[in-house]
Amino acid sequence: MTGQERSEEKSECVSMSPMMEADPALPESERVCVFGTGDLGHSLGLRLLQAGYGVVFGSRQPHSSSRLPHGAQVLGHAAAAQSAHLIFIAVQREHYDFLVPLANQLKGKVLVDLSNNLRKNQYPEANAEYLQSLVPGAEVVKGFNTLSAWSLQNGPSDANRQVYICGESAEAKQAVIAVATKLGFSALDRGSISVARELEDFPLQLFPQWRLPLRIAIGLSAAFFFYLLIRDIIYAYVTQGKDISFRIMVSLANKVCPIVSLIMLSLCYLPGVLASFLQLYRGTKYRRFPDWLDRWMLCRKQLGLLALGFAFLHVLYTLIIPIRYFVRFKVTERTVSVIRENRTTEFDTTTAWRSDSYLSLGILGFGLYVLLGITSLPSVSNALSWREFSFVQSKLGHLTLLLCTAHTYLYGWNRFLSSSTYKWYTPPGYMLCLVLPSVVLLLKLLLITPCVDRTITRIRQGWERGADQRNPKDSQPLIP
Amino acid sequence: MTGQERSEEKSECVSMSPMMEADPALPESERVCVFGTGDLGHSLGLRLLQAGYGVVFGSRQPHSSSRLPHGAQVLGHAAAAQSAHLIFIAVQREHYDFLVPLANQLKGKVLVDLSNNLRKNQYPEANAEYLQSLVPGAEVVKGFNTLSAWSLQNGPSDANRQVYICGESAEAKQAVIAVATKLGFSALDRGSISVARELEDFPLQLFPQWRLPLRIAIGLSAAFFFYLLIRDIIYAYVTQGKDISFRIMVSLANKVCPIVSLIMLSLCYLPGVLASFLQLYRGTKYRRFPDWLDRWMLCRKQLGLLALGFAFLHVLYTLIIPIRYFVRFKVTERTVSVIRENRTTEFDTTTAWRSDSYLSLGILGFGLYVLLGITSLPSVSNALSWREFSFVQSKLGHLTLLLCTAHTYLYGWNRFLSSSTYKWYTPPGYMLCLVLPSVVLLLKLLLITPCVDRTITRIRQGWERGADQRNPKDSQPLIP
Amino acid sequence: MTGQERSEEKSECVSMSPMMEADPALPESERVCVFGTGDLGHSLGLRLLQAGYGVVFGSRQPHSSSRLPHGAQVLGHAAAAQSAHLIFIAVQREHYDFLVPLANQLKGKVLVDLSNNLRKNQYPEANAEYLQSLVPGAEVVKGFNTLSAWSLQNGPSDANRQVYICGESAEAKQAVIAVATKLGFSALDRGSISVARELEDFPLQLFPQWRLPLRIAIGLSAAFFFYLLIRDIIYAYVTQGKDISFRIMVSLANKVCPIVSLIMLSLCYLPGVLASFLQLYRGTKYRRFPDWLDRWMLCRKQLGLLALGFAFLHVLYTLIIPIRYFVRFKVTERTVSVIRENRTTEFDTTTAWRSDSYLSLGILGFGLYVLLGITSLPSVSNALSWREFSFVQSKLGHLTLLLCTAHTYLYGWNRFLSSSTYKWYTPPGYMLCLVLPSVVLLLKLLLITPCVDRTITRIRQGWERGADQRNPKDSQPLIP
Repeated sequence: MTGQERSEEKSECVSMSPMMEADPALPESERVCVFGTGDLGHSLGLRLLQAGYGVVFGSRQPHSSSRLPHGAQVLGHAAAAQSAHLIFIAVQREHYDFLVPLANQLKGKVLVDLSNNLRKNQYPEANAEYLQSLVPGAEVVKGFNTLSAWSLQNGPSDANRQVYICGESAEAKQAVIAVATKLGFSALDRGSISVARELEDFPLQLFPQWRLPLRIAIGLSAAFFFYLLIRDIIYAYVTQGKDISFRIMVSLANKVCPIVSLIMLSLCYLPGVLASFLQLYRGTKYRRFPDWLDRWMLCRKQLGLLALGFAFLHVLYTLIIPIRYFVRFKVTERTVSVIRENRTTEFDTTTAWRSDSYLSLGILGFGLYVLLGITSLPSVSNALSWREFSFVQSKLGHLTLLLCTAHTYLYGWNRFLSSSTYKWYTPPGYMLCLVLPSVVLLLKLLLITPCVDRTITRIRQGWERGADQRNPKDSQPLIP
Repeated sequence: MTGQERSEEKSECVSMSPMMEADPALPESERVCVFGTGDLGHSLGLRLLQAGYGVVFGSRQPHSSSRLPHGAQVLGHAAAAQSAHLIFIAVQREHYDFLVPLANQLKGKVLVDLSNNLRKNQYPEANAEYLQSLVPGAEVVKGFNTLSAWSLQNGPSDANRQVYICGESAEAKQAVIAVATKLGFSALDRGSISVARELEDFPLQLFPQWRLPLRIAIGLSAAFFFYLLIRDIIYAYVTQGKDISFRIMVSLANKVCPIVSLIMLSLCYLPGVLASFLQLYRGTKYRRFPDWLDRWMLCRKQLGLLALGFAFLHVLYTLIIPIRYFVRFKVTERTVSVIRENRTTEFDTTTAWRSDSYLSLGILGFGLYVLLGITSLPSVSNALSWREFSFVQSKLGHLTLLLCTAHTYLYGWNRFLSSSTYKWYTPPGYMLCLVLPSVVLLLKLLLITPCVDRTITRIRQGWERGADQRNPKDSQPLIP
Repeated sequence: MTGQERSEEKSECVSMSPMMEADPALPESERVCVFGTGDLGHSLGLRLLQAGYGVVFGSRQPHSSSRLPHGAQVLGHAAAAQSAHLIFIAVQREHYDFLVPLANQLKGKVLVDLSNNLRKNQYPEANAEYLQSLVPGAEVVKGFNTLSAWSLQNGPSDANRQVYICGESAEAKQAVIAVATKLGFSALDRGSISVARELEDFPLQLFPQWRLPLRIAIGLSAAFFFYLLIRDIIYAYVTQGKDISFRIMVSLANKVCPIVSLIMLSLCYLPGVLASFLQLYRGTKYRRFPDWLDRWMLCRKQLGLLALGFAFLHVLYTLIIPIRYFVRFKVTERTVSVIRENRTTEFDTTTAWRSDSYLSLGILGFGLYVLLGITSLPSVSNALSWREFSFVQSKLGHLTLLLCTAHTYLYGWNRFLSSSTYKWYTPPGYMLCLVLPSVVLLLKLLLITPCVDRTITRIRQGWERGADQRNPKDSQPLIP
């Protein structure tokens, strides 16, 4: 430290208000510095003070920064930098250049970059990397930026328990982890400074992996809603003049839900089947899948969970059927007509078998569906070995698809052949939705025939068609 | 080590039973010492032995402590302390003073404080801090106290996987973490010794955050139960002499559940709305909320989950309606009366619309309710960015409240105006329960009008009314 | 390094294809070596290259290993070993002996053993321990073996986020953790090399803790299915010639599910009760339970979750009752017969009470059942203190058993005494399933009587019958 700097510090210290005297009892490791007296610095300072740290704010105008947390000290930037080893940079990226003249005072200090951007790819490099380039002598650690301002001030809450950090220096990261731990957060070292961009994008994301599946779900729902609206309600109005528009609320919803659910469940298993056929065709697993297939594979979980959501609604819509006014009215009407017309009703064992099988398959399918959903919960899937996970998601998943498809076929039963089913020459919704799952199940059936299965297994173990001259000693089979 | 001490150790070693000879092959890092031969020491010793550690018990009367785990060695306290670097103190706090004369032997040793208290605030300072004050030369680490005795003896089980530790010395903590890891637990460093009190309170807690919400739930349930008991059952008995007390089991329960659920859901969103208005009124976010509001905000999650529980029961109670003997009796009776009195029933499209909309809104509301519950699971909320979390809990949460409130309004329909609804001049339960959600939704509507929303957003970003002279360069906006 | 070795390296380097020149800009810490050019080495190499590492493959025939990831370098084993500090051994265990002659080059290197076996106990010692014994001068770290090949190549996915490692040297493990972190995985240090066998068994396991409970569930289901098939369907066919086989799909399933659920729930609480009585009889908690009891205790969670699964199916099967064709037919038929035979039906308040109580108890029991299931989720049970966990699982668990048992008794009601219930002298299924829960509840009732409870509590705190001379000062009570 040069004499000039020290005197600068002294002159600033003198100008402090007396109640903000630095606590000399605190060792340097218990003192931290915060650059920036805006909201973020304010919140963080409050929390640091509560955790027992001595807090020194660095400000351009230390005398006018009066609204800072009680107990904190305010100094000029240079003096503040010298008072602590750890400096939180709670300043917007556009103003980072004020740090350049402080290079001497910041040498060897740990700078914690808390900044976020307003949108992705706002700048060519990550804020933390930019900061490091401005102050090469300091150790920059990215961190705390994924927390909400509320959590920074009030401590961990639901989605704000973990602090992700990254940086080059292990000691610098250790120092930041120690502070995070003392503030009550659990810190996770994510690696080198090159991860900073990822951490800066994290708070901006709003379910990026759910967008495509959600669009598919909304698109399918809308398409089938209008298709069924025309077939069921407008058809009845046009051909018979009957207004049955009230059916939109429950009957139509209860057709759209299972249709979308079944299609999305098969969309969840189709890419895996396609990928297998592509590997079979290419004779190797070492060539990358086309981009669209890769993206599709990566959103299978989301497709499956949305399918489960629609199945859940379908179950509720089905179970309330007997409570509906319309249904109760119909039941009474039918009984009354039996009496008045003095008819006798005959019990049909085949119909009983069909009706009960249809319901039973649906129940079992939904039970497995829920099981698949539960094993998708992060804490459950983390506890499984991947052999267990793939057993559940692949074996039980295809079984679920089989049960739900059979449930839908039994629902259709012999109406597939009756011409009265095809109003305005259009097939009913459940027939349309059977196409995709049937195709997936057929392809899967092909894949598990012994001869195809053997080839696939060999390809997955690294075998390549036309490349058998490889040294077998080097190969290490993985448990398939 | 002084000669006298060593000879003391020797004399004690000589007096050991021969089968308890120390294993000289074990390095010091593989040997641990346990002070205290009670239950806790016994259990821990067993587990340590199973994990391959050499275990030396320290006891006041090493000769009479015969019922210790096979394979362990028993020595006097001084000799035992010298045999290992790590010493578990499995002794009650009241007897810690026996350690004072051992100060020399304990110098530089790691003492693990496992103790718990019988109630909170039993002593002025944490047991670990007291221990440290008695033996200043040793490194005290608090830990293992959150495990059950069963887990200490048998290894990790459900709620006993994590060992929380705290202490001043990083090396001492590392040594304890190594032992915990070898015993199969995952250890979590919680920070300095000042956290010890929190760790000591942890095993004593029994759902502290659930108490207030549970009391509210029980209070509301009881109040509405008696209110509806009087209005529905006692009223019928008094005015018409009819005994319909059997309705308590299902009908009454199915009125209490949705009422309590809706009120608690609005109680879950009311404090957030109140806090916004308070910030608007004060023109700043830097003043603390009143204590009651803070406490209320902190139990929103529990309020919401209890509301979900009541909604779940409401769904089940509703779905079993058609199975009830009473309902089946009524349906038959109604049909029979239609025939006998030769009436004709007219289908009412408006009623069909109302009934189906009412059911559909309920189903969608419950679906969102469940979604909110799932995102409250720790592993799910940890995987979300806080932008995602607040989107789900705030946006979807208010939508859930809106759907459920509309569901209740449709249930009431035009009965609000009919005087026959007001038995004994009291309004029915569902009307009472609509007050609070309607208020919350109205206030929320006010808050999201553009001009109010703009002010709130500025306040949340640190803006203060009457404090605009602040240096704008220091401010760092957070993504809202 | 001897001159001969170095020249060997040089000669190999010269023979490299020019496009595979080593990147001299990379420091040694950024270069890793992979031994083995099979599938595993290939996948891992791809991922390492993507993460920015320089990858050097070690191969017996570096010239013919042409199909390796673009950008990697291929050298002979000796030369490859010298190019990096960290060496991944992606070779089958049977071929490990090729490493013996490389002992000099491997001295001080970190060898990561990724190997898995085809079945448990395939070899006398763990692969990693065998590797260590072959190359004593190197630091062997076991790790990455629990990942699927897909995840090794494509990064973390659901069940493949955590890398478990173990080994003797802390620095070696730290180096491996750094690589794992950079590849996007979160690494967990599981301790010394003796854990290697456990890690090697992990990918082979397929729900080992679920096997016994699943066998019990399947056995019970099959037994009760055939029992009820004979009693309900074959009996009707034989004695009345009626074909009611369609009942198999729903009615029979809805009898088997609740029966198995209730029995498994009581099997979940029986071992705890038995253990208490065993401790009472022995007068100590320090003697191990018999093996069968230990195994039983360890699968209680799985028993309970399977019981919940069956209860869930029972709820669905019950709720669809009014939708069934058979039930709708019967309802109409009954109403018609009331009219035609001009009967009057009398409302029976007792039946209404019984029917509603039966349903209400079932709903409350199922609600608690679900609550127990939710607290079994790893992330939820980790967040509970063990006092909270045992409160939920023991107190609420026994309450659930009580509610479900009462639900079943009310279902039976006065049919227990009617002789027509006992077709072919066999009791109905629900009577059989009541035996076990009644016994468990009775025994539990005995255990919570004050005098027995007091003795049990003392035993759990370490008291032993006939051993009261112990030094009370050493004992440390645990919160029960």
